Amino acid sequence: MNPVELIRRKRNGEHLSRTELEQFIDGYVKGSLPDYQMTAFLMAVFFQGMTPEETRVFTEVMLHSGEVIDLGTLPGIKVDKHSTGGVGDKVSLILAPMVAACGVPVPMISGRGLGHTGGTLDKLESIPGFRTDLSIEEYKKIVGELGVVLIGQTEKLVPADRKMYALRDVTATVESIPLIAGSIMSKKLAEGIDALVLDIKTGNGAFMKSQEDSLALGSTLVGLGNQMGKKTVGFVTDMSQPLGTKIGNWLEVVESVDCLRGKRIPDLMEVTYVLGGAMVWLGGKAASIHEGMKLCQDAIWSGKAYEKFLQLVTRQGGDSQLLENLDRYPESDHSIDVISPLDGYVAGFDTFGIGVLATELGAGRLKVDDVIDPKAGIQLQKKVGDAVQKGESIATLSTDKSEIIQKAAKRFLACISVKGSAPPVLPAIHKYIDDKGQHPWTAPSLY
Amino acid sequence: MNPVELIRRKRNGEHLSRTELEQFIDGYVKGSLPDYQMTAFLMAVFFQGMTPEETRVFTEVMLHSGEVIDLGTLPGIKVDKHSTGGVGDKVSLILAPMVAACGVPVPMISGRGLGHTGGTLDKLESIPGFRTDLSIEEYKKIVGELGVVLIGQTEKLVPADRKMYALRDVTATVESIPLIAGSIMSKKLAEGIDALVLDIKTGNGAFMKSQEDSLALGSTLVGLGNQMGKKTVGFVTDMSQPLGTKIGNWLEVVESVDCLRGKRIPDLMEVTYVLGGAMVWLGGKAASIHEGMKLCQDAIWSGKAYEKFLQLVTRQGGDSQLLENLDRYPESDHSIDVISPLDGYVAGFDTFGIGVLATELGAGRLKVDDVIDPKAGIQLQKKVGDAVQKGESIATLSTDKSEIIQKAAKRFLACISVKGSAPPVLPAIHKYIDDKGQHPWTAPSLY
Repeated sequence: MNPVELIRRKRNGEHLSRTELEQFIDGYVKGSLPDYQMTAFLMAVFFQGMTPEETRVFTEVMLHSGEVIDLGTLPGIKVDKHSTGGVGDKVSLILAPMVAACGVPVPMISGRGLGHTGGTLDKLESIPGFRTDLSIEEYKKIVGELGVVLIGQTEKLVPADRKMYALRDVTATVESIPLIAGSIMSKKLAEGIDALVLDIKTGNGAFMKSQEDSLALGSTLVGLGNQMGKKTVGFVTDMSQPLGTKIGNWLEVVESVDCLRGKRIPDLMEVTYVLGGAMVWLGGKAASIHEGMKLCQDAIWSGKAYEKFLQLVTRQGGDSQLLENLDRYPESDHSIDVISPLDGYVAGFDTFGIGVLATELGAGRLKVDDVIDPKAGIQLQKKVGDAVQKGESIATLSTDKSEIIQKAAKRFLACISVKGSAPPVLPAIHKYIDDKGQHPWTAPSLY
Repeated sequence: MNPVELIRRKRNGEHLSRTELEQFIDGYVKGSLPDYQMTAFLMAVFFQGMTPEETRVFTEVMLHSGEVIDLGTLPGIKVDKHSTGGVGDKVSLILAPMVAACGVPVPMISGRGLGHTGGTLDKLESIPGFRTDLSIEEYKKIVGELGVVLIGQTEKLVPADRKMYALRDVTATVESIPLIAGSIMSKKLAEGIDALVLDIKTGNGAFMKSQEDSLALGSTLVGLGNQMGKKTVGFVTDMSQPLGTKIGNWLEVVESVDCLRGKRIPDLMEVTYVLGGAMVWLGGKAASIHEGMKLCQDAIWSGKAYEKFLQLVTRQGGDSQLLENLDRYPESDHSIDVISPLDGYVAGFDTFGIGVLATELGAGRLKVDDVIDPKAGIQLQKKVGDAVQKGESIATLSTDKSEIIQKAAKRFLACISVKGSAPPVLPAIHKYIDDKGQHPWTAPSLY
């Protein structure tokens, strides 16, 4: 393989063979192919794309750049969920124990937050003692014991993606559907799962801001999963406002515990039940997604999902006693209410702006090595469509950084629009995607 | 400056400011900006291009990344020529002393061959003792003394280009008009010249294979030169067959000496007189290009151009005695005639293929650190339009590599087409470009 010739061919819109992609990516992982040639390839892919066949081969090559976990000795159809990420998205914390409580094993490998989005690992690590850096052996053992495990990426899985993702982040080559699809699907398929449910967020707090881009990514991901022998379905879900009412790591654990104990947070639980219902269906424990949703609701209402969560936290070293006594957790040094300057209805959020604001309050990282403040974050008293009176609080911001809190409150106000009449509220679920195509989502809500 | 944001903006087709380009390129030259981010930028430029204004600013930033030579203390209008490169292009060796003999100072900084094209420095260095690695002080001194000097790039001039060019070569980002234009013009403007004549080669042995691309590059280069305060004109000249009859470093010195002594090699001398005539005109020694061409012809016929060449060779350490006794030069160990298998007319050459073949015989480098064999090369007995009989020699190949010579002769035959009727012969000069636009070239030939 001549790497320059390979880059030139992709640059000119030609298709690369499996052997070419294998040699190129293998050279990169082994260090014989330099970062700058991989960058040239990535930018060429950004502009020229990949055919579905190339995307599949690319994903397979990425997948086989490292270890692929085999969970075949464990009983049951192992199902995971992947979300493209958003603001206030704590679905995994509720979903994983809920689906496991329905008898479907959920071996989940998650990521950290970066930029405006949170990450499941950071949320879990706000629980004192909770360990996400388990070995593959421990991962297998725990999913065998409890039917659920939640860990972080290990060095052994998909090394090509870890190296390429870091490079994409600093070379403006992130926003490419084949590259995103290859990155997501190679990591998920390395987990040893049998089936996968995808949550493709859409709207101003999502990675894909337009419905069109979200559908294109979703279709690519669902197609890839099914072609690679894993039953895969996806949902395009709303991220035009934060999901639920709390943003920030410990705050999201609290909201998750509330929901696991039966609290009704409509948009959050609608998404959680739909995704969970699909997982239970794919896991062979229900005859339809809707039946799966009802089983999930039973798992919540019966307390089994919450019980499973407490077991998981304990098993992974976390202080589950604290979850039973949420108010023992330390609070931020400072908090401020964001007061509505007028009467009206909440018409919309700048969700991306709110995500960045939460990060700056301490809830996330602006750089990879920033330290997270687990207490910091935002609690919403109002969501889109809610009536609000002049002088009423819309949200509460919490932080240890006294120097930024006043300015943060002003910035939050700039991230919200209040109008004279009630706006239409977007549904939580926009579309359903399976191997037959894109479909409207018409199943009755559980609320 | 956030380099990722800058790359993203260029990737999205936005325009970058002078400050942004300065900081980005300065960071790269100083080593704080890594190769992979420069690569991402270069590939984004490949796809998105640059506006004329951006190209000019980019060129200025490149130019000022290092030293800019000041020849203002020397009398006369200093004029140089740049060619985009081709096969058998030894024009500089004849042109520089010829124009200097007309009283126009020619301070010329040239490059080496790479790939299928030869380089002026390699040709000059086939003359025993000839030194091209002179300091800027020596360069200034010699042009002051003789009115002509021919050296190689120094570390001090346009360091940004040297670093970026090496990177472009290995990342498939060479073929971009703004990048090519910035590279060429920054180097030429750093020489301290007042005016510039450009030779944009077109055809299957040129970098730009189509007339359209050649005109686009030529117009960009001429526009840039004039905007940057240097009177600049350009010619699109033919590279659909090798220029002249000899390819290979010492062979091209021999052909240059022959022409300097008055030998008529039509296509080679047509191009040399036109470019030289434009230089003499821009140098203020003639009222028109055509008058300049006649002065050039006088300089050849009077022996003054050849005399100037001998002075130059001697001054730069070369053995000028050898030029007076060309047959004392060692010959290649092996040579072979390429025999025509049929009667007809030479209809065309695969000029790129012939350039590669000459390189493989030893005349060029396939890798940067390959060593050149100055004796090796190709001599053409036939050019396009010439009648050829079955059994007659079309070309002679010379090399020290006995193992490849038979195969090379076969490959040469595959690079030539012989047809039953005489084909049309393309003119040596296709177009003339000045600050007013592109024009047909109608001046009478001197042949």
